[in-house]
Amino acid sequence: MERVTVKQAADMLLGHDDILILCHHSPDGDTLGSGYGLYFGLKSLGKRARVLCPDEISGKFRFMLRGYRDEKFEPRLIVAVDIADKKLMGRLEGAYGDKVDLCIDHHVSNTGYAAALCLDDTAAAAAQVIFAVLEQMGVAPSSHIANCLYCGLATDTGCFRYANTTAQTFYTAAKLVEWGADNGTIGREVFDTRSRARIMAENRLMQSLEFYYDDRCALAVITLQDMADSRIEQSDLDGLTALPRQIEGVEVGITIKEKEAGVYKVSVRTSTYVDACALCRQLGGGGHIRASGCQLTGTLKQVKEQLLTLVKDFLKPL
Amino acid sequence: MERVTVKQAADMLLGHDDILILCHHSPDGDTLGSGYGLYFGLKSLGKRARVLCPDEISGKFRFMLRGYRDEKFEPRLIVAVDIADKKLMGRLEGAYGDKVDLCIDHHVSNTGYAAALCLDDTAAAAAQVIFAVLEQMGVAPSSHIANCLYCGLATDTGCFRYANTTAQTFYTAAKLVEWGADNGTIGREVFDTRSRARIMAENRLMQSLEFYYDDRCALAVITLQDMADSRIEQSDLDGLTALPRQIEGVEVGITIKEKEAGVYKVSVRTSTYVDACALCRQLGGGGHIRASGCQLTGTLKQVKEQLLTLVKDFLKPL
Repeated sequence: MERVTVKQAADMLLGHDDILILCHHSPDGDTLGSGYGLYFGLKSLGKRARVLCPDEISGKFRFMLRGYRDEKFEPRLIVAVDIADKKLMGRLEGAYGDKVDLCIDHHVSNTGYAAALCLDDTAAAAAQVIFAVLEQMGVAPSSHIANCLYCGLATDTGCFRYANTTAQTFYTAAKLVEWGADNGTIGREVFDTRSRARIMAENRLMQSLEFYYDDRCALAVITLQDMADSRIEQSDLDGLTALPRQIEGVEVGITIKEKEAGVYKVSVRTSTYVDACALCRQLGGGGHIRASGCQLTGTLKQVKEQLLTLVKDFLKPL
Repeated sequence: MERVTVKQAADMLLGHDDILILCHHSPDGDTLGSGYGLYFGLKSLGKRARVLCPDEISGKFRFMLRGYRDEKFEPRLIVAVDIADKKLMGRLEGAYGDKVDLCIDHHVSNTGYAAALCLDDTAAAAAQVIFAVLEQMGVAPSSHIANCLYCGLATDTGCFRYANTTAQTFYTAAKLVEWGADNGTIGREVFDTRSRARIMAENRLMQSLEFYYDDRCALAVITLQDMADSRIEQSDLDGLTALPRQIEGVEVGITIKEKEAGVYKVSVRTSTYVDACALCRQLGGGGHIRASGCQLTGTLKQVKEQLLTLVKDFLKPL
């Protein structure tokens, strides 16, 4: 694996035709925005390109496909966007896991599976790096490309709320708006719109809230019965794990989702000092310092007790 | 009233000492961020200044007062920030309503009550204009000033979600982060934190949801009884009126709050085409095209019927 600069990545792309772009599984706004943003940038330079995504694309991101034509060809350059590990390619891993020529990414944890890696781990989103590459390639401003990349930037930063948002993120957003990104519509449709099932899911979760340790730990549960009763789908639960931590005064927010009888998926979110990753590692899981997870088995009561005993050790004495 | 440029406003401020700064009533992040941002900018230039705010400052904005020293003096220059109309001065109107030397604002509806008006109605927040004025005055970068102004910018744009966010807004945000704004903490504390009472209020409201006209109209109610039952305060209801409209497919979101027995405060929010202001004007209210309100009397049933009959006329035929 060779590390390459934005300029070198742009040169690789300029020097090839028939470019295949890969997105990661369970595609989010950033892998899709990066993939389609790059696709339309390459098309505008007269190149043949194609995007492969291992899973279905959520309705709110389908606007990115406007003008996309799926063409089959023998790829001359295979590019992965926002994919930190070849395992994240899902059903595409078998065919392409070891054949990626160029990976454009922002994850510090990138495993270096690609022949060339253009990585900016200070970037809030892969879309921020893709924008730099497109500018370097001389791609002309386009509102559709801008919408794809803006959506990537906004989704990976919680619409600029999260601490990963830097001055450079804001400069990129400013330029994308100048390119014609319809930021108001993306803000409303992606961040200010919730399905009715989603609202049901939030209500269920919030009604289950329990507080521990002087309200510094909030714990919420969603069971298979809740989901069946309210006709909630798995996809309605995305991001729901953020809610318990959002409550004023809460340092540790825990969400327990029943996966199957006796099996629970646990998400831990922390506010300012508890190391969620260290906490979850003690239970066989892991993740990031403020957002981690693990899977536990037993009765709900046992799972709660196991978690709460551990949380106590991580909270500062009052 | 004379319109002045950012340069002229900066010159007025540079040419005076003993400057009194006024904020509007029910102070939000923008009037406070503008007021305290300007205060600390003036202090850094060695001037005496003071901020007057007609109402109490919400806990989440109190960080702005760090380092503030309230000094009494006879003002030589009176500056209003983010105040579109002298009526919005609340209890300060009597003493200062007709004595404002300079108003720095971004509201297109500014009534021109000040001797000099520095207005940029393309700015998403007054804080965006204040930043331009401080830059013009040569104020040195300061992380505390940046935090005040960033908070103003973020609150008036729903943390950059709303359509009023322009490229210039993002450029200003980028520069404020370079000045040292702790955007991650402000994002978390102001936008990702909810009180327990607030969550109770949201749950109550969401449980009351009713849908009409092929789910294009969502209507929610919060009664005095709900508020008493769940110990919800008036301040917990801020911004709650946005929720019904956020539901997928909803064009008109209505929130009815019981103010006193038989008196209801109605908020109307619309997504893409219904003119909320025209709708509310027909009921004796008004506001903006996507966000308006009115006050209705009668039984809850009567109020709902009156609203729904009117909404029907404003919705496009299917």
